[in-house]
Amino acid sequence: MRTDYCGNIDSSYVGQEVTLCGWVNKRRDLGGLIFIDLRDREGIVQVVFDPDLPEVLEEANKLRSEFCVKLTGKVRARPEGQINDAMRTGAIEILGTGLEIFSKSAVLPLDWNQENSEEQRLRYRYLDLRRPLMSQRLKFRAQVTAAVRRYLEDDGFLDIETPILTKATPEGARDYLVPSRTHKGEFFALPQSPQLFKQLLMMSGMDRYYQIVKCFRDEDLRADRQPEFTQIDLETTFLDANGVMKITEGMIRDLFMKMLDVDLGDFPRMTYAEAMQRYGSDKPDLRNPLELVDVADLLKTVEFKVFSGPANDDKGRVAVIRVPGGASMSRKQIDEYTKFAGIYGAKGLAWIKINEKAQGQEGLQSPILKFLSEDITDAIIARTGAEQGDILLFGADSATVVTEAMGALRLKLGEDFELLEGEWKPLWVVDFPMFEEADGQMHALHHPFTAPRGVDAQELIDNPSEALSDAYDMVLNGVELGGGSVRIHDQQMQQAVFTVLGIDEEEAQNKFGFLLEALQFGAPPHAGLAFGLDRLVMLMTGATSIRDVMAFPKTTTAACPLTDAPSAANPQQLADLAIDVVKKSTD
Amino acid sequence: MRTDYCGNIDSSYVGQEVTLCGWVNKRRDLGGLIFIDLRDREGIVQVVFDPDLPEVLEEANKLRSEFCVKLTGKVRARPEGQINDAMRTGAIEILGTGLEIFSKSAVLPLDWNQENSEEQRLRYRYLDLRRPLMSQRLKFRAQVTAAVRRYLEDDGFLDIETPILTKATPEGARDYLVPSRTHKGEFFALPQSPQLFKQLLMMSGMDRYYQIVKCFRDEDLRADRQPEFTQIDLETTFLDANGVMKITEGMIRDLFMKMLDVDLGDFPRMTYAEAMQRYGSDKPDLRNPLELVDVADLLKTVEFKVFSGPANDDKGRVAVIRVPGGASMSRKQIDEYTKFAGIYGAKGLAWIKINEKAQGQEGLQSPILKFLSEDITDAIIARTGAEQGDILLFGADSATVVTEAMGALRLKLGEDFELLEGEWKPLWVVDFPMFEEADGQMHALHHPFTAPRGVDAQELIDNPSEALSDAYDMVLNGVELGGGSVRIHDQQMQQAVFTVLGIDEEEAQNKFGFLLEALQFGAPPHAGLAFGLDRLVMLMTGATSIRDVMAFPKTTTAACPLTDAPSAANPQQLADLAIDVVKKSTD
Repeated sequence: MRTDYCGNIDSSYVGQEVTLCGWVNKRRDLGGLIFIDLRDREGIVQVVFDPDLPEVLEEANKLRSEFCVKLTGKVRARPEGQINDAMRTGAIEILGTGLEIFSKSAVLPLDWNQENSEEQRLRYRYLDLRRPLMSQRLKFRAQVTAAVRRYLEDDGFLDIETPILTKATPEGARDYLVPSRTHKGEFFALPQSPQLFKQLLMMSGMDRYYQIVKCFRDEDLRADRQPEFTQIDLETTFLDANGVMKITEGMIRDLFMKMLDVDLGDFPRMTYAEAMQRYGSDKPDLRNPLELVDVADLLKTVEFKVFSGPANDDKGRVAVIRVPGGASMSRKQIDEYTKFAGIYGAKGLAWIKINEKAQGQEGLQSPILKFLSEDITDAIIARTGAEQGDILLFGADSATVVTEAMGALRLKLGEDFELLEGEWKPLWVVDFPMFEEADGQMHALHHPFTAPRGVDAQELIDNPSEALSDAYDMVLNGVELGGGSVRIHDQQMQQAVFTVLGIDEEEAQNKFGFLLEALQFGAPPHAGLAFGLDRLVMLMTGATSIRDVMAFPKTTTAACPLTDAPSAANPQQLADLAIDVVKKSTD
Repeated sequence: MRTDYCGNIDSSYVGQEVTLCGWVNKRRDLGGLIFIDLRDREGIVQVVFDPDLPEVLEEANKLRSEFCVKLTGKVRARPEGQINDAMRTGAIEILGTGLEIFSKSAVLPLDWNQENSEEQRLRYRYLDLRRPLMSQRLKFRAQVTAAVRRYLEDDGFLDIETPILTKATPEGARDYLVPSRTHKGEFFALPQSPQLFKQLLMMSGMDRYYQIVKCFRDEDLRADRQPEFTQIDLETTFLDANGVMKITEGMIRDLFMKMLDVDLGDFPRMTYAEAMQRYGSDKPDLRNPLELVDVADLLKTVEFKVFSGPANDDKGRVAVIRVPGGASMSRKQIDEYTKFAGIYGAKGLAWIKINEKAQGQEGLQSPILKFLSEDITDAIIARTGAEQGDILLFGADSATVVTEAMGALRLKLGEDFELLEGEWKPLWVVDFPMFEEADGQMHALHHPFTAPRGVDAQELIDNPSEALSDAYDMVLNGVELGGGSVRIHDQQMQQAVFTVLGIDEEEAQNKFGFLLEALQFGAPPHAGLAFGLDRLVMLMTGATSIRDVMAFPKTTTAACPLTDAPSAANPQQLADLAIDVVKKSTD
């Protein structure tokens, strides 16, 4: 029906006749002429109708915003002074010589010139997606998946589909259930990830698997979670952690180069311990130059119990953040940061301002100065590199609280003081602990199929809290892009992990019996990784929510205002499935 | 861990040291040597261990079938007389110099040398997939999806994901339901296809959409259906039926060339009416040369009521199939074909054998000859082109019964008499009726969003049974590969279709309100198509079931013997979802 896209018409077309299809983005009438901005997926082009062709002008006079039309016309250079360099089509316009209206449009329920409510945007998603910002994001996402697929396929990865109707998975979050009609009273679960299937594919010798695949978690409502989300999921045989990191780092580097013309360079690697120590986070944003500096050793003997207590406690921690230029903070600002740190359990926030180039305690300002000797303040200033105009903020408490609170504070300070440096800062975090203890029980930090590093099954059982896993997370700008690990391919080791986790024989058989069984038949060493596609595209496009890079997301209450899903089922369907809706007396 | 795949080692590697990882496919001991066939995804290579390296030989002596190992060795040419031209690796062997056993294997519960039950194969799917036949099919499938994606992406199609948790769709089959926890008592449905979402994407100006996407139907159990299956789904804006057929025909032609080195040529087009008339099917297998030849006009006046009845009935049909060489059929065989036609409602199967070159009725043999004049038999022989040694089989009944029964008989005869010509015979079937009548009600032959051809809304309502749709099916070797249509983009026309289908205002609003609403806002002309990926790959690989081209299919009772899905849910989960399992008194 058309010869080209609107957004592609540039000066090279001058003199040609083109036929375009698209939507009326805007109409302006000026001195007997009608000007139309015609829009399609690729952009906007200016069309002018003039009185020399009265029939076409009459038809054009019917046009309103968002009418869908076919237009024929001649491309010509715009008059001097009307050239718009910001647009690809900005040097030309089209003299309309033929016009067909495919369909009219009522006035849109969304006003693109102002902020619309999320509910309204999702209710009329198909109109929200007409906004160039939104359609460009979906186009970008499609280009990302195309590039990722080509990279992996060229590296020998096979796209293999795993089931959506499957059994409850062990990832921890709640499963979505699907009642079975042929096996009444039983349920499928939607997968939280294809973890077990991809491991089975390695056991079947498929060697390299990938899939861009929907995963499902029925989680409690949080700001930017979606009940269904998309993973770039991959698994390899006969590769170790380095091998997987090399492939996936190459993939992301290639992607950023292709899509954004950005060279991410080699990704540095950092242990989990160092990340927690220096940044108070297992996914540090390295654009932020602030660090947590440990000073407990300097404060063991001070009279100030808030410091000396944790400093002398094995499980305590005292850490300082130096904020360059922070001496300008008002008392009120300091109070606000203290409150912020309080969210994470910190009971207070001691501080020292360096008002002038400090010599001894001269030029220092702080309510706690009296507790600290000159030697101590000198040593703290030396260790933190504090300079005139800075502030030092102290966290002193259990290590857990200090790390978490100062880690969060670090991020906030970095933003508030506009300290972020560089646009993209990727890294690998490695050497995670195998387990974390909570409520007197061991939990897998990744998942129970993650292999430990350098210990055998008995050593793992004997000393689980010391064990490190062969896991790796890719972090970019403080966001976990993806995580993976070497998997256990030895039955005894898998059993040992279950033992540490307190999963007994029966539970193990019930939940993962088929995996344990599969380990008997020549299971190969294997390792893999999964990326969160939504988050990756969000980061790359600069969107602020994953909902803005999905075509048809759900609301934060997991509903779709467009289709009105979920909705009541008809009684016959429920009868077929042998289920009943329970009416609570309070309903 | 390795330098190459087993299956890639050929004569060009002679003299090189290689390291390979894989599984022991077979072990043979011969004259103090141990021979191993080592297998990975890419193929099998022969390894020999000899007594010159006693330590390696000793390790090799532990090897049993399906052990997973790493092997280092030197590639050398096989001795004269041991060369196997059928294998890529058949001219070389590897002298093992190093061996590491990753993991041992118990004796497999599947015996690859004999037929295993479907249940057993699915129970140990990861072992079934180790068979080269199976892993090659999955690899082939991945190559098909990669090729399809590249073709479509290079043609401007964007891969856009549509929701899996959505609202009940109107495709007719039963939906799988997913109870919502946040909206208790309400349900999502898994999509039977992304039909409505892809239409909405066209309304949002995304222009060209594609997705290789899981779809779900909770259908009654039939031989080769799966509860979840995969579609190559696409939709375009501003293209008519010809435009979509051109793109998708090009895609399939490209695919066959790339994957099978087969040139499918230009696909012929045939109307639905012609397909039903000549082949008794809307998806004719054109490899089969047999045709249904209409002869009612010749039989209106014969005394034989079985013929003259239908011949004089507006809704009757009399059709002949000429089977070359069929005169050799025994009485028993004819009885069997009569029985077969009976399955489709045919009450009998009259026949005439042409034993010698017929002149008049000389040389003809038939119980019904006495009812037919020489003129009539001459005319029938002339029209069907019957020759010596042929048989003519007659169907006479209502047109529906004759078309269906003779259509099925045609396929069976074609196979039994090995008449199929050519390997691949694609075609387009077009000009379908918009509606079919059943139980006094009109039903959409495709789906209710299919546009009619050349009529306006009022004409459609006035004469629905005459209306043809702008739909097209791609057929290959008697299998429907895909089907699509131009969609309605006009609200009035959509309303007219609902009217014909007896869908009232309220039902239309309930089911498709959002689509009807979307048609108000400048909806563009759009058209699309969906292919069944599983069936396409099945055809291309020569598999006999779609289960053989899926990694983890379900059984015919929609269960997974590997993971034991579906299974009972725990009571807490059901309570969270506010549903109860209904126990029937008969349970």
